[in-house]
Amino acid sequence: MAQNIYDNPDFFAGYSQLPRQVRGLDGAPEWPSIRAMLPTVAGKRVIDLGCGFGWASRWMRKQGATSVLGLDLSKNMISRATADANDPKIEYRIADLETVELPRAAFDLAYSALTFHYIRDFSRLVRMVHQALVPGGELVFTIEHPIFMAAVHPHWIADEDGRKTWPVNRYAIEGERQTDWFAKGVIKHHRTIGTTLNTLIRSGFQILAVEEFAPSVEQIAQTSELAVELERPMMLLVSARR
Amino acid sequence: MAQNIYDNPDFFAGYSQLPRQVRGLDGAPEWPSIRAMLPTVAGKRVIDLGCGFGWASRWMRKQGATSVLGLDLSKNMISRATADANDPKIEYRIADLETVELPRAAFDLAYSALTFHYIRDFSRLVRMVHQALVPGGELVFTIEHPIFMAAVHPHWIADEDGRKTWPVNRYAIEGERQTDWFAKGVIKHHRTIGTTLNTLIRSGFQILAVEEFAPSVEQIAQTSELAVELERPMMLLVSARR
Repeated sequence: MAQNIYDNPDFFAGYSQLPRQVRGLDGAPEWPSIRAMLPTVAGKRVIDLGCGFGWASRWMRKQGATSVLGLDLSKNMISRATADANDPKIEYRIADLETVELPRAAFDLAYSALTFHYIRDFSRLVRMVHQALVPGGELVFTIEHPIFMAAVHPHWIADEDGRKTWPVNRYAIEGERQTDWFAKGVIKHHRTIGTTLNTLIRSGFQILAVEEFAPSVEQIAQTSELAVELERPMMLLVSARR
Repeated sequence: MAQNIYDNPDFFAGYSQLPRQVRGLDGAPEWPSIRAMLPTVAGKRVIDLGCGFGWASRWMRKQGATSVLGLDLSKNMISRATADANDPKIEYRIADLETVELPRAAFDLAYSALTFHYIRDFSRLVRMVHQALVPGGELVFTIEHPIFMAAVHPHWIADEDGRKTWPVNRYAIEGERQTDWFAKGVIKHHRTIGTTLNTLIRSGFQILAVEEFAPSVEQIAQTSELAVELERPMMLLVSARR
Protein backbone atom coordinates (compact mmCIF):
# COMPACT_ATOMS: atom_id res chain seq x y z
CA MET A 1 0.00 0.00 0.00
CA ALA A 2 1.17 3.53 -0.74
CA GLN A 3 2.35 5.72 2.10
CA ASN A 4 -0.60 7.73 3.40
CA ILE A 5 0.92 10.96 4.65
CA TYR A 6 -2.34 12.84 4.25
CA ASP A 7 -3.88 11.07 7.23
CA ASN A 8 -0.92 12.00 9.41
CA PRO A 9 -2.40 14.80 11.61
CA ASP A 10 0.73 17.01 11.46
CA PHE A 11 0.97 16.70 7.71
CA PHE A 12 -2.72 17.28 7.18
CA ALA A 13 -2.77 20.38 9.42
CA GLY A 14 0.09 21.99 7.47
CA TYR A 15 -1.07 20.83 4.07
CA SER A 16 -4.58 22.18 4.60
CA GLN A 17 -3.13 25.68 4.95
CA LEU A 18 -1.46 25.71 1.51
CA PRO A 19 -2.92 28.44 -0.73
CA ARG A 20 -4.04 25.82 -3.22
CA GLN A 21 -6.00 24.01 -0.50
CA VAL A 22 -7.51 27.17 0.99
CA ARG A 23 -8.22 29.01 -2.28
CA GLY A 24 -8.60 26.00 -4.54
CA LEU A 25 -7.53 25.98 -8.18
CA ASP A 26 -6.93 29.75 -8.24
CA GLY A 27 -4.33 29.22 -5.53
CA ALA A 28 -2.32 26.98 -7.86
CA PRO A 29 -0.13 29.04 -10.21
CA GLU A 30 0.05 26.20 -12.73
CA TRP A 31 -3.75 26.02 -13.06
CA PRO A 32 -3.97 28.34 -16.12
CA SER A 33 -1.44 26.09 -17.88
CA ILE A 34 -3.42 22.97 -16.97
CA ARG A 35 -6.67 24.55 -18.18
CA ALA A 36 -5.03 25.30 -21.51
CA MET A 37 -4.12 21.61 -21.84
CA LEU A 38 -7.53 20.22 -20.89
CA PRO A 39 -9.94 19.20 -23.63
CA THR A 40 -13.57 20.33 -23.48
CA VAL A 41 -14.96 18.89 -20.28
CA ALA A 42 -18.70 19.27 -21.03
CA GLY A 43 -20.40 15.95 -21.58
CA LYS A 44 -17.43 13.93 -20.37
CA ARG A 45 -17.14 11.23 -17.73
CA VAL A 46 -14.18 12.26 -15.65
CA ILE A 47 -11.97 10.41 -13.20
CA ASP A 48 -9.86 12.53 -10.82
CA LEU A 49 -6.92 10.49 -9.54
CA GLY A 50 -5.75 11.84 -6.21
CA CYS A 51 -8.69 14.22 -5.92
CA GLY A 52 -7.77 15.66 -2.51
CA PHE A 53 -10.41 18.12 -1.33
CA GLY A 54 -12.18 17.80 -4.67
CA TRP A 55 -11.47 21.28 -6.06
CA ALA A 56 -10.86 19.97 -9.58
CA SER A 57 -13.71 17.44 -9.39
CA ARG A 58 -16.16 20.23 -8.62
CA TRP A 59 -14.66 22.43 -11.35
CA MET A 60 -15.12 19.62 -13.88
CA ARG A 61 -18.81 19.41 -12.98
CA LYS A 62 -19.20 23.19 -13.35
CA GLN A 63 -17.72 22.82 -16.84
CA GLY A 64 -20.45 20.32 -17.64
CA ALA A 65 -18.86 16.95 -16.96
CA THR A 66 -21.67 14.41 -16.83
CA SER A 67 -20.04 12.60 -13.90
CA VAL A 68 -16.90 12.73 -11.84
CA LEU A 69 -15.30 9.94 -9.86
CA GLY A 70 -12.74 11.26 -7.39
CA LEU A 71 -10.26 8.82 -5.85
CA ASP A 72 -7.91 9.49 -2.99
CA LEU A 73 -5.95 7.41 -0.52
CA SER A 74 -6.75 9.73 2.35
CA LYS A 75 -9.85 9.42 4.50
CA ASN A 76 -9.33 13.03 5.60
CA MET A 77 -9.39 14.18 2.01
CA ILE A 78 -12.33 12.10 0.93
CA SER A 79 -14.48 13.06 3.91
CA ARG A 80 -13.78 16.74 3.37
CA ALA A 81 -14.39 16.39 -0.40
CA THR A 82 -17.65 14.55 0.23
CA ALA A 83 -18.81 17.19 2.70
CA ASP A 84 -18.08 19.96 0.16
CA ALA A 85 -19.64 18.26 -2.86
CA ASN A 86 -23.46 18.22 -2.57
CA ASP A 87 -23.68 16.86 -6.11
CA PRO A 88 -25.05 13.37 -6.87
CA LYS A 89 -22.93 13.27 -10.04
CA ILE A 90 -19.69 13.45 -8.10
CA GLU A 91 -18.67 10.29 -6.32
CA TYR A 92 -15.68 10.18 -4.01
CA ARG A 93 -13.98 6.96 -3.00
CA ILE A 94 -11.01 6.03 -0.88
CA ALA A 95 -8.63 4.14 -3.16
CA ASP A 96 -4.94 3.25 -3.37
CA LEU A 97 -3.72 4.08 -6.88
CA GLU A 98 -0.98 1.44 -6.50
CA THR A 99 -3.59 -1.32 -6.57
CA VAL A 100 -6.82 0.27 -7.80
CA GLU A 101 -8.89 -1.59 -10.38
CA LEU A 102 -10.80 0.60 -12.82
CA PRO A 103 -13.63 -0.41 -15.16
CA ARG A 104 -12.86 -0.69 -18.87
CA ALA A 105 -13.63 2.22 -21.23
CA ALA A 106 -15.66 3.96 -18.53
CA PHE A 107 -14.14 7.46 -18.72
CA ASP A 108 -13.54 10.14 -21.33
CA LEU A 109 -11.04 12.14 -19.32
CA ALA A 110 -8.59 11.16 -16.59
CA TYR A 111 -7.13 13.99 -14.56
CA SER A 112 -4.49 13.92 -11.86
CA ALA A 113 -2.73 16.76 -10.06
CA LEU A 114 0.54 16.28 -8.19
CA THR A 115 -0.17 12.67 -7.32
CA PHE A 116 1.71 10.33 -9.66
CA HIS A 117 5.12 11.09 -8.12
CA TYR A 118 3.87 9.31 -4.99
CA ILE A 119 3.22 6.15 -7.01
CA ARG A 120 5.83 3.42 -7.01
CA ASP A 121 4.41 1.38 -9.89
CA PHE A 122 3.69 4.07 -12.45
CA SER A 123 3.63 1.56 -15.28
CA ARG A 124 0.76 -0.42 -13.72
CA LEU A 125 -1.24 2.72 -13.06
CA VAL A 126 -0.75 4.04 -16.60
CA ARG A 127 -1.94 0.73 -18.07
CA MET A 128 -4.95 0.78 -15.73
CA VAL A 129 -5.85 4.34 -16.74
CA HIS A 130 -5.34 3.54 -20.42
CA GLN A 131 -7.84 0.69 -20.35
CA ALA A 132 -10.26 2.78 -18.25
CA LEU A 133 -10.41 5.46 -20.95
CA VAL A 134 -12.45 5.17 -24.11
CA PRO A 135 -10.41 5.27 -27.35
CA GLY A 136 -9.74 8.95 -27.97
CA GLY A 137 -10.07 9.68 -24.27
CA GLU A 138 -7.45 11.92 -22.70
CA LEU A 139 -5.18 11.83 -19.68
CA VAL A 140 -3.99 15.18 -18.31
CA PHE A 141 -1.71 15.11 -15.28
CA THR A 142 0.86 17.07 -13.36
CA ILE A 143 3.76 15.80 -11.26
CA GLU A 144 6.64 17.36 -9.44
CA HIS A 145 9.25 17.80 -12.14
CA PRO A 146 11.89 15.04 -12.15
CA ILE A 147 14.54 17.77 -11.96
CA PHE A 148 12.84 19.16 -8.86
CA MET A 149 12.81 15.73 -7.22
CA ALA A 150 16.09 14.15 -8.19
CA ALA A 151 18.70 15.56 -5.81
CA VAL A 152 19.64 14.17 -2.42
CA HIS A 153 19.28 17.67 -0.94
CA PRO A 154 16.62 19.41 -2.97
CA HIS A 155 16.83 23.03 -1.82
CA TRP A 156 17.89 26.35 -3.33
CA ILE A 157 21.58 27.16 -3.47
CA ALA A 158 23.38 30.17 -4.98
CA ASP A 159 25.74 30.20 -7.94
CA GLU A 160 28.92 32.31 -7.96
CA ASP A 161 26.90 35.40 -8.91
CA GLY A 162 24.44 34.79 -6.09
CA ARG A 163 21.73 33.66 -8.49
CA LYS A 164 19.20 31.20 -7.10
CA THR A 165 20.18 27.82 -8.44
CA TRP A 166 18.61 24.39 -8.19
CA PRO A 167 20.92 21.45 -7.59
CA VAL A 168 20.61 18.30 -9.66
CA ASN A 169 22.19 14.98 -8.81
CA ARG A 170 21.20 11.29 -8.94
CA TYR A 171 19.01 12.17 -11.91
CA ALA A 172 19.49 8.82 -13.68
CA ILE A 173 19.10 6.85 -10.45
CA GLU A 174 15.37 6.28 -10.26
CA GLY A 175 13.47 5.26 -7.16
CA GLU A 176 12.55 6.45 -3.73
CA ARG A 177 13.26 9.98 -2.52
CA GLN A 178 12.54 10.93 1.07
CA THR A 179 11.87 14.53 2.00
CA ASP A 180 10.52 16.38 4.99
CA TRP A 181 7.42 18.33 3.99
CA PHE A 182 4.98 19.03 6.83
CA ALA A 183 6.07 15.62 8.14
CA LYS A 184 9.31 13.64 8.28
CA GLY A 185 10.09 11.04 5.65
CA VAL A 186 7.56 11.80 2.94
CA ILE A 187 8.24 9.22 0.23
CA LYS A 188 8.22 10.15 -3.44
CA HIS A 189 9.28 8.11 -6.46
CA HIS A 190 11.70 9.69 -8.87
CA ARG A 191 11.49 8.76 -12.53
CA THR A 192 13.24 10.55 -15.38
CA ILE A 193 11.25 12.50 -17.95
CA GLY A 194 12.19 9.85 -20.46
CA THR A 195 10.75 7.07 -18.31
CA THR A 196 7.62 9.09 -17.59
CA LEU A 197 6.89 9.75 -21.27
CA ASN A 198 7.99 6.35 -22.57
CA THR A 199 5.77 4.61 -20.03
CA LEU A 200 2.81 6.48 -21.48
CA ILE A 201 3.84 5.80 -25.08
CA ARG A 202 4.45 2.09 -24.46
CA SER A 203 1.01 1.78 -22.84
CA GLY A 204 -0.55 3.10 -26.04
CA PHE A 205 -0.88 6.79 -25.27
CA GLN A 206 -0.02 9.47 -27.80
CA ILE A 207 1.71 12.45 -26.22
CA LEU A 208 -0.24 15.65 -27.00
CA ALA A 209 1.73 18.23 -25.02
CA VAL A 210 4.45 18.49 -22.41
CA GLU A 211 4.68 21.67 -20.35
CA GLU A 212 7.06 22.66 -17.62
CA PHE A 213 5.30 25.19 -15.47
CA ALA A 214 6.86 28.64 -15.45
CA PRO A 215 5.09 31.72 -14.10
CA SER A 216 3.90 34.32 -16.60
CA VAL A 217 4.95 37.98 -16.48
CA GLU A 218 1.48 38.81 -15.09
CA GLN A 219 1.75 36.17 -12.38
CA ILE A 220 5.14 37.48 -11.31
CA ALA A 221 3.82 41.06 -11.27
CA GLN A 222 1.06 39.89 -8.91
CA THR A 223 3.12 37.48 -6.81
CA SER A 224 6.79 38.38 -6.91
CA GLU A 225 7.86 35.21 -5.03
CA LEU A 226 6.97 33.25 -8.17
CA ALA A 227 9.87 34.82 -10.12
CA VAL A 228 12.26 32.23 -8.73
CA GLU A 229 10.34 29.52 -10.58
CA LEU A 230 11.90 30.80 -13.81
CA GLU A 231 15.19 29.34 -12.59
CA ARG A 232 14.14 25.69 -12.33
CA PRO A 233 11.42 23.47 -13.72
CA MET A 234 9.18 22.73 -10.76
CA MET A 235 6.29 20.83 -12.30
CA LEU A 236 5.78 18.68 -15.35
CA LEU A 237 2.38 18.84 -17.06
CA VAL A 238 1.50 16.19 -19.63
CA SER A 239 -1.51 15.58 -21.84
CA ALA A 240 -1.89 12.33 -23.74
CA ARG A 241 -4.58 10.60 -25.78
CA ARG A 242 -5.61 6.96 -25.76
CA MET B 1 23.47 32.66 -40.77
CA ALA B 2 24.28 30.34 -37.90
CA GLN B 3 27.58 30.78 -36.07
CA ASN B 4 30.20 28.60 -37.71
CA ILE B 5 32.52 27.63 -34.89
CA TYR B 6 33.70 24.53 -36.71
CA ASP B 7 35.68 26.55 -39.20
CA ASN B 8 37.45 28.43 -36.40
CA PRO B 9 40.93 26.84 -36.47
CA ASP B 10 41.29 26.71 -32.64
CA PHE B 11 37.89 25.13 -32.24
CA PHE B 12 38.43 22.67 -35.05
CA ALA B 13 41.82 21.59 -33.73
CA GLY B 14 40.41 20.82 -30.28
CA TYR B 15 37.16 19.36 -31.52
CA SER B 16 38.93 16.98 -33.90
CA GLN B 17 40.66 15.36 -30.91
CA LEU B 18 37.40 14.38 -29.15
CA PRO B 19 37.09 10.60 -28.78
CA ARG B 20 33.90 10.67 -30.81
CA GLN B 21 35.73 12.40 -33.68
CA VAL B 22 38.80 10.16 -33.51
CA ARG B 23 37.02 6.85 -32.86
CA GLY B 24 33.70 7.68 -34.47
CA LEU B 25 30.40 6.35 -33.21
CA ASP B 26 32.04 3.92 -30.79
CA GLY B 27 33.64 6.92 -29.10
CA ALA B 28 30.19 8.32 -28.29
CA PRO B 29 28.78 6.70 -25.13
CA GLU B 30 25.22 7.54 -26.17
CA TRP B 31 25.54 5.68 -29.47
CA PRO B 32 24.08 2.35 -28.17
CA SER B 33 21.02 4.29 -26.98
CA ILE B 34 20.66 6.02 -30.34
CA ARG B 35 20.99 2.71 -32.19
CA ALA B 36 18.19 1.29 -30.09
CA MET B 37 15.96 4.19 -31.15
CA LEU B 38 16.73 4.01 -34.85
CA PRO B 39 14.35 2.18 -37.17
CA THR B 40 15.69 -0.30 -39.70
CA VAL B 41 17.99 1.68 -41.95
CA ALA B 42 18.22 -0.77 -44.87
CA GLY B 43 16.48 0.50 -47.97
CA LYS B 44 15.98 3.99 -46.57
CA ARG B 45 16.88 7.38 -47.98
CA VAL B 46 18.61 9.14 -45.12
CA ILE B 47 19.41 12.78 -44.41
CA ASP B 48 22.07 13.49 -41.78
CA LEU B 49 21.63 17.02 -40.43
CA GLY B 50 24.91 18.32 -39.06
CA CYS B 51 26.86 15.34 -40.40
CA GLY B 52 30.32 16.48 -39.23
CA PHE B 53 32.98 14.06 -40.35
CA GLY B 54 30.30 11.73 -41.69
CA TRP B 55 30.66 8.88 -39.19
CA ALA B 56 26.90 8.34 -38.98
CA SER B 57 26.38 8.85 -42.71
CA ARG B 58 28.86 6.07 -43.46
CA TRP B 59 27.31 3.82 -40.82
CA MET B 60 23.87 4.34 -42.38
CA ARG B 61 25.22 3.16 -45.72
CA LYS B 62 26.79 0.10 -44.09
CA GLN B 63 23.36 -0.70 -42.68
CA GLY B 64 21.96 -0.66 -46.20
CA ALA B 65 20.63 2.87 -46.61
CA THR B 66 20.02 3.40 -50.33
CA SER B 67 21.35 6.96 -50.14
CA VAL B 68 22.60 9.43 -47.58
CA LEU B 69 22.66 13.20 -47.84
CA GLY B 70 24.93 14.75 -45.23
CA LEU B 71 24.60 18.47 -44.52
CA ASP B 72 26.92 20.58 -42.44
CA LEU B 73 27.68 24.27 -42.07
CA SER B 74 31.40 23.67 -41.84
CA LYS B 75 33.66 23.49 -44.87
CA ASN B 76 36.24 21.72 -42.72
CA MET B 77 33.74 19.05 -41.81
CA ILE B 78 32.37 18.57 -45.30
CA SER B 79 35.79 18.37 -46.94
CA ARG B 80 36.96 15.78 -44.42
CA ALA B 81 33.69 13.84 -44.75
CA THR B 82 33.95 13.91 -48.53
CA ALA B 83 37.55 12.71 -48.42
CA ASP B 84 36.56 9.80 -46.14
CA ALA B 85 33.46 8.73 -48.05
CA ASN B 86 34.41 7.06 -51.36
CA ASP B 87 30.76 6.12 -51.89
CA PRO B 88 28.67 7.57 -54.75
CA LYS B 89 25.52 7.04 -52.68
CA ILE B 90 26.67 9.46 -50.00
CA GLU B 91 26.47 13.11 -50.91
CA TYR B 92 27.83 15.80 -48.63
CA ARG B 93 26.82 19.44 -48.92
CA ILE B 94 27.64 22.62 -47.05
CA ALA B 95 24.33 23.96 -45.76
CA ASP B 96 23.04 26.26 -43.03
CA LEU B 97 20.22 24.49 -41.21
CA GLU B 98 18.76 27.89 -40.24
CA THR B 99 17.85 28.57 -43.85
CA VAL B 100 18.17 25.24 -45.69
CA GLU B 101 15.43 24.26 -48.15
CA LEU B 102 14.77 20.53 -48.43
CA PRO B 103 12.81 18.70 -51.13
CA ARG B 104 9.35 17.38 -50.22
CA ALA B 105 8.89 13.75 -49.17
CA ALA B 106 12.40 12.90 -50.30
CA PHE B 107 13.65 11.02 -47.21
CA ASP B 108 12.60 8.08 -45.06
CA LEU B 109 14.84 8.88 -42.11
CA ALA B 110 16.22 12.14 -40.78
CA TYR B 111 19.08 11.86 -38.31
CA SER B 112 20.87 14.56 -36.36
CA ALA B 113 23.45 14.29 -33.60
CA LEU B 114 24.22 17.16 -31.24
CA THR B 115 23.35 19.85 -33.77
CA PHE B 116 19.86 21.24 -33.11
CA HIS B 117 20.92 23.11 -29.95
CA TYR B 118 22.97 25.36 -32.25
CA ILE B 119 19.83 26.28 -34.22
CA ARG B 120 18.04 29.51 -33.35
CA ASP B 121 14.84 28.82 -35.30
CA PHE B 122 14.08 25.24 -34.30
CA SER B 123 10.47 25.56 -35.33
CA ARG B 124 11.36 26.40 -38.95
CA LEU B 125 13.81 23.53 -39.14
CA VAL B 126 11.34 21.02 -37.71
CA ARG B 127 8.70 22.05 -40.24
CA MET B 128 11.28 21.77 -43.03
CA VAL B 129 12.31 18.27 -41.88
CA HIS B 130 8.67 17.21 -41.49
CA GLN B 131 7.81 18.08 -45.09
CA ALA B 132 11.07 16.50 -46.30
CA LEU B 133 10.08 13.13 -44.79
CA VAL B 134 7.62 10.74 -46.35
CA PRO B 135 4.52 10.02 -44.24
CA GLY B 136 5.64 7.40 -41.74
CA GLY B 137 9.23 8.61 -42.02
CA GLU B 138 11.17 9.06 -38.81
CA LEU B 139 13.29 11.75 -37.21
CA VAL B 140 15.86 10.63 -34.64
CA PHE B 141 17.99 13.32 -33.04
CA THR B 142 20.12 14.13 -30.04
CA ILE B 143 20.76 17.50 -28.42
CA GLU B 144 22.56 18.70 -25.35
CA HIS B 145 19.97 18.27 -22.62
CA PRO B 146 18.15 21.51 -21.77
CA ILE B 147 19.13 20.94 -18.13
CA PHE B 148 22.76 20.70 -19.19
CA MET B 149 22.52 23.96 -21.12
CA ALA B 150 20.32 26.18 -19.01
CA ALA B 151 22.57 27.65 -16.32
CA VAL B 152 24.62 30.83 -16.56
CA HIS B 153 27.64 28.90 -15.25
CA PRO B 154 27.24 25.33 -16.43
CA HIS B 155 29.91 23.44 -14.53
CA TRP B 156 30.04 20.82 -11.79
CA ILE B 157 29.62 21.94 -8.21
CA ALA B 158 29.47 19.91 -4.99
CA ASP B 159 26.49 19.53 -2.66
CA GLU B 160 26.91 19.55 1.16
CA ASP B 161 27.96 15.89 1.08
CA GLY B 162 30.55 16.56 -1.63
CA ARG B 163 28.44 14.82 -4.27
CA LYS B 164 28.91 16.09 -7.82
CA THR B 165 25.95 18.28 -8.56
CA TRP B 166 24.82 20.09 -11.65
CA PRO B 167 23.48 23.63 -11.24
CA VAL B 168 20.24 24.66 -12.90
CA ASN B 169 19.08 28.23 -13.32
CA ARG B 170 17.36 30.32 -16.03
CA TYR B 171 15.64 27.13 -17.16
CA ALA B 172 12.43 28.86 -18.24
CA ILE B 173 14.30 31.71 -19.92
CA GLU B 174 14.88 30.41 -23.40
CA GLY B 175 17.38 31.80 -25.88
CA GLU B 176 21.07 32.24 -26.40
CA ARG B 177 23.67 30.69 -24.13
CA GLN B 178 27.34 31.46 -24.61
CA THR B 179 29.99 29.05 -23.44
CA ASP B 180 33.67 28.58 -23.96
CA TRP B 181 34.32 25.18 -25.51
CA PHE B 182 37.56 24.92 -27.54
CA ALA B 183 36.83 28.57 -28.47
CA LYS B 184 35.41 31.61 -26.70
CA GLY B 185 31.75 32.52 -27.09
CA VAL B 186 30.27 29.38 -28.61
CA ILE B 187 26.58 30.20 -29.08
CA LYS B 188 23.90 27.66 -28.25
CA HIS B 189 20.13 28.10 -28.08
CA HIS B 190 18.39 26.91 -24.95
CA ARG B 191 14.86 25.62 -25.24
CA THR B 192 12.96 23.75 -22.55
CA ILE B 193 12.08 20.08 -23.00
CA GLY B 194 8.45 21.17 -23.28
CA THR B 195 9.22 23.55 -26.15
CA THR B 196 11.38 20.95 -27.88
CA LEU B 197 8.70 18.26 -27.79
CA ASN B 198 5.74 20.56 -28.44
CA THR B 199 7.48 22.02 -31.49
CA LEU B 200 7.68 18.50 -32.92
CA ILE B 201 4.08 17.68 -32.02
CA ARG B 202 2.71 20.94 -33.45
CA SER B 203 4.57 20.30 -36.69
CA GLY B 204 2.76 16.99 -37.03
CA PHE B 205 5.28 14.59 -35.52
CA GLN B 206 4.24 11.82 -33.17
CA ILE B 207 6.72 11.31 -30.34
CA LEU B 208 7.96 7.70 -30.31
CA ALA B 209 10.53 7.82 -27.52
CA VAL B 210 12.39 10.27 -25.33
CA GLU B 211 15.66 9.15 -23.74
CA GLU B 212 18.03 10.96 -21.46
CA PHE B 213 21.42 9.40 -21.92
CA ALA B 214 22.82 7.71 -18.84
CA PRO B 215 25.77 5.33 -18.92
CA SER B 216 25.09 1.64 -18.36
CA VAL B 217 26.76 -0.40 -15.63
CA GLU B 218 28.97 -1.98 -18.32
CA GLN B 219 29.99 1.41 -19.71
CA ILE B 220 30.91 2.66 -16.23
CA ALA B 221 32.92 -0.52 -15.57
CA GLN B 222 34.88 0.17 -18.76
CA THR B 223 35.15 3.95 -18.43
CA SER B 224 34.83 5.03 -14.83
CA GLU B 225 34.70 8.77 -15.70
CA LEU B 226 31.25 8.14 -17.13
CA ALA B 227 29.80 7.46 -13.67
CA VAL B 228 29.31 11.15 -13.07
CA GLU B 229 26.76 11.23 -15.90
CA LEU B 230 24.33 9.42 -13.59
CA GLU B 231 24.07 12.68 -11.64
CA ARG B 232 22.72 14.90 -14.41
CA PRO B 233 20.95 14.46 -17.73
CA MET B 234 23.54 15.42 -20.32
CA MET B 235 21.84 14.60 -23.59
CA LEU B 236 18.29 14.35 -24.81
CA LEU B 237 17.51 11.72 -27.48
CA VAL B 238 14.22 11.88 -29.30
CA SER B 239 12.56 9.76 -31.97
CA ALA B 240 9.44 10.91 -33.74
CA ARG B 241 7.36 9.82 -36.72
CA ARG B 242 5.80 11.94 -39.44
